[in-house]
Amino acid sequence: MARPPGTGPLGIVAGGGSLPRRLVEVCRDSGRGAFVIAIEGHTDPATVAGTDHLWIRMGQSEKAIGALRAAGAEELVLVGAVKRPSMTELRPDRLTFKFFARIGFKALGDDGLLGAVVKALEAEGFTLRGVDEFLADLLAQEGCLGQVVPDEAAWRDIRRGIEVVRAMGAADVGQATVIQDGLVLGVEAVEGTDALLARCGPLRRAGPGGVLVKLSKPGQERRADLPTIGVRTVAEAAAAGLRGIAVEAGATLVVDAPAVAEAADRAGLFLVGIRAASS
Amino acid sequence: MARPPGTGPLGIVAGGGSLPRRLVEVCRDSGRGAFVIAIEGHTDPATVAGTDHLWIRMGQSEKAIGALRAAGAEELVLVGAVKRPSMTELRPDRLTFKFFARIGFKALGDDGLLGAVVKALEAEGFTLRGVDEFLADLLAQEGCLGQVVPDEAAWRDIRRGIEVVRAMGAADVGQATVIQDGLVLGVEAVEGTDALLARCGPLRRAGPGGVLVKLSKPGQERRADLPTIGVRTVAEAAAAGLRGIAVEAGATLVVDAPAVAEAADRAGLFLVGIRAASS
Repeated sequence: MARPPGTGPLGIVAGGGSLPRRLVEVCRDSGRGAFVIAIEGHTDPATVAGTDHLWIRMGQSEKAIGALRAAGAEELVLVGAVKRPSMTELRPDRLTFKFFARIGFKALGDDGLLGAVVKALEAEGFTLRGVDEFLADLLAQEGCLGQVVPDEAAWRDIRRGIEVVRAMGAADVGQATVIQDGLVLGVEAVEGTDALLARCGPLRRAGPGGVLVKLSKPGQERRADLPTIGVRTVAEAAAAGLRGIAVEAGATLVVDAPAVAEAADRAGLFLVGIRAASS
Repeated sequence: MARPPGTGPLGIVAGGGSLPRRLVEVCRDSGRGAFVIAIEGHTDPATVAGTDHLWIRMGQSEKAIGALRAAGAEELVLVGAVKRPSMTELRPDRLTFKFFARIGFKALGDDGLLGAVVKALEAEGFTLRGVDEFLADLLAQEGCLGQVVPDEAAWRDIRRGIEVVRAMGAADVGQATVIQDGLVLGVEAVEGTDALLARCGPLRRAGPGGVLVKLSKPGQERRADLPTIGVRTVAEAAAAGLRGIAVEAGATLVVDAPAVAEAADRAGLFLVGIRAASS
């Protein structure tokens, strides 16, 4: 992989999962180095092993920004899942409080909030970069990842799923839905895709299984949040009786694509990258 | 209550819950009489006790229509919850099959399907009536049903909930959402409001509890489906840590309003009827 551009170590604000660790490795392999802001209750401790870092709790943006500046990080990447706290849980420091006082209640959608975070960090002088710029080989491609392909009925469910996710996205809610034979079995809000899949298992009707459709939201701030799937997503989809998964090509991170393809083949599931805008 | 208009017994296609029984009682008290189509796995057997009726399974529309005609029923009401089967589970009789062959895949949304059912029954010569025409005293009124009133933060959550349900309704999905402090904890699809509330309990954040917002969908066929709440809804909302419930005034059936108000007061929940269009 080419050396990531920019000067100084890459500032990585690390949520959960294995992607932040991957990004740290890319920075190390390229010789650039990284400074990681690790968030209590979210970041995997393995992410920061052997790398400069600072642990914070959610709401300590002032402390985080000070440390990033002291480390000489000019470019930032937000990567990994973050469970959004309520305002009450947040216990914001002074800068975080000012941020919320300024954006007020209008940024209450997930995406609105993340977009405001990006803008606020830019206002502090940082350059925000998308994780996909550094981990481009993880982006889903158009077409099928494994051997199984969707039939015409599955494509109908995929199209219905696109319609549902787009409608929800307009209200800044969720990224995923499960459709079986035209029926909307479930819609994702804050519970996450794992929980969505778990509850759709018992809701399954007879006949061919449902399809998980997971897309980015219209106007989604890609520098803050990209839909991500991995081997676990495939296992959970199979456990829920699904027949396949559709993700947005070029806007979804696939963690360990060869393993994901193998898991999908073994489970008899299709995994297809789609161009949602033109479907 | 005034005698329901129309000639012949009222044809009642009875789903689950206690509303169909209420409607049968109204017909009996008014001297009009009723003929009930009871659906296996849905209708409470108490609904048909002492009343002319026919048990069918889902998909036996031809048998149902024949019985309604033989009983002299010219007006029909669809009342009570029906779990929508998949096409595969349906095992349609000839008329039901022709219905689905005609409407094809476009009626796959819940509301699209119910609207098509209403139209098909009208094409068979029946007049479809809304259950609210017979049980008007069960319609939610504008304002608070109990003693607890929403504060300004709760009103913000209610307004956000209206926005979310409206966006989903445009894609013909669900009627309900739970919002806490601006955060969309959950969105209802086929799982129903009970399941939505059950999963939102563990998703609850610190601070004041969430609000259930349950509305009719834009363009919803009122003669086929009205949102309904009862004492159980209040109990489940309280168990999920909610602070209140907002329903659409004039478009929501409240089963046993005095008991619902008492349960809400006891749990410290507000229950407010709103005019969603103007909010």
